[in-house]
Amino acid sequence: MIYALGPQGSYTEKAARIFAKLISGKVRLLPSIYDVFEAVTRKNLGVVPVENSIEGSVTLTMDLLLEFPVKIFGEVSIEIRHCLIGYNMEKIRKVVSHPQALAQCRKFIRERGWEVESVESTSTAVQLVARLKREDVAAIGPKEAAELYGVPVLMEDIQDYENNKTRFILIGHQEIENPLRCNGFPKKSSIIVELKENKPGSLYRALGEFANRGINLTRIESRPSRKDLGLYYFYIDYEFYPRDDELMEALRKHASFIKHLGTYCVIEGDLRV
Amino acid sequence: MIYALGPQGSYTEKAARIFAKLISGKVRLLPSIYDVFEAVTRKNLGVVPVENSIEGSVTLTMDLLLEFPVKIFGEVSIEIRHCLIGYNMEKIRKVVSHPQALAQCRKFIRERGWEVESVESTSTAVQLVARLKREDVAAIGPKEAAELYGVPVLMEDIQDYENNKTRFILIGHQEIENPLRCNGFPKKSSIIVELKENKPGSLYRALGEFANRGINLTRIESRPSRKDLGLYYFYIDYEFYPRDDELMEALRKHASFIKHLGTYCVIEGDLRV
Repeated sequence: MIYALGPQGSYTEKAARIFAKLISGKVRLLPSIYDVFEAVTRKNLGVVPVENSIEGSVTLTMDLLLEFPVKIFGEVSIEIRHCLIGYNMEKIRKVVSHPQALAQCRKFIRERGWEVESVESTSTAVQLVARLKREDVAAIGPKEAAELYGVPVLMEDIQDYENNKTRFILIGHQEIENPLRCNGFPKKSSIIVELKENKPGSLYRALGEFANRGINLTRIESRPSRKDLGLYYFYIDYEFYPRDDELMEALRKHASFIKHLGTYCVIEGDLRV
Repeated sequence: MIYALGPQGSYTEKAARIFAKLISGKVRLLPSIYDVFEAVTRKNLGVVPVENSIEGSVTLTMDLLLEFPVKIFGEVSIEIRHCLIGYNMEKIRKVVSHPQALAQCRKFIRERGWEVESVESTSTAVQLVARLKREDVAAIGPKEAAELYGVPVLMEDIQDYENNKTRFILIGHQEIENPLRCNGFPKKSSIIVELKENKPGSLYRALGEFANRGINLTRIESRPSRKDLGLYYFYIDYEFYPRDDELMEALRKHASFIKHLGTYCVIEGDLRV
């Protein structure tokens, strides 16, 4: 079973369905990121957002990746394509959606002089419009939510900027085998590192281990440790490196703690699976 | 005028009130982070979350810091202290709050076997409890919201972990003068850098400019550029360095783009101002 952050019709559900097709699994939705991590510790799979452009919290996911006995089994990045969902383009006076979605379509909304109202998720917004059945209220959300609640899509791709991707990860208990096969998709690895010394140059020296091996970093992010002020965890993603054990050995010279979150495939979400 | 992300009673409003006391300003609340940035371009001040542990989106703030002609004038970090807000501890059967707040009090809630329900913000949750006036429904949120809506605080500090801080920044148009005086608070600087080459080791070499000068980084985060896949912006915060111009000159060798977001004071939020 693949547990994913809901509600139904959300972008996380869409990500979960992509993974579900690839590994022939079933998706069940849960109300919070925390619930998904808990389900995963009972030997299930889970899907949570890791880069927050619409929903969920990147920092909560990051904290729980550190805390729970999980590994990353795969990543999918989904292009956020907002749709205007409602009954009559000419009659709209108000649009409802998640605050981030409203912000991402700000120019589009302003040109039309519509009022806005925030709700908890893009999916809730579409559900609300379906229930109200009023021509003057429309929602902004994913096409999947429009289909789910039977409200017409009036316009697609209404976001102000292109290339607006949100990344989701497939996670699993660290003692189960990764069911996802890469089949040509690129691979990367993720680690969480706490450096031995909180001194100028300690991050620089640790990154030297990647640079000297010609390894490209794809993401680096610091998170303050909960243990002490001024201590940081570094979340580092890097392109697949065949001698990963040797790299970890070298990193251990600089680190007081390393959690290897796994080596996994990176899937593009527009893939028709 | 200081424009801040609302709603009333939220943690961002609390951060805005701390800045308002220090610079004798008035606070007005706006519904989205985007609205705050827009107000700031009309020569106002603004307060937005930059590290998301409860509300707002760090990625949206980061993207808009790049896009808008703004500087950072100050930072305040606030310890998130959740309160249980309601009418009767013994009768509670359901708690409502923002999904992140519910997640952060998960163990506390589970031990009591209460149901949970998500709403748009912690402040909305308290407002809902005030309106329902039912003994079996309580909210989780900040003390300020309890006072605002006149609902009793039944218990303080119910979060599962201590040291749960959220950071907020005071921003202003880049052509106005920073009204905030540091008076002994530590200072730091923030920059956004795009590196010339997307090659292994290019970040490493850029960080060498900090390490060689003995400058401590307090945050580093990569954000994919919207221009092209595989290109990144790096958001770097570092402790105050007196010869900042010389550092920028050195960094320019590695960078195709640098935006200096300012040198500003870092204020602890528990400060009674």
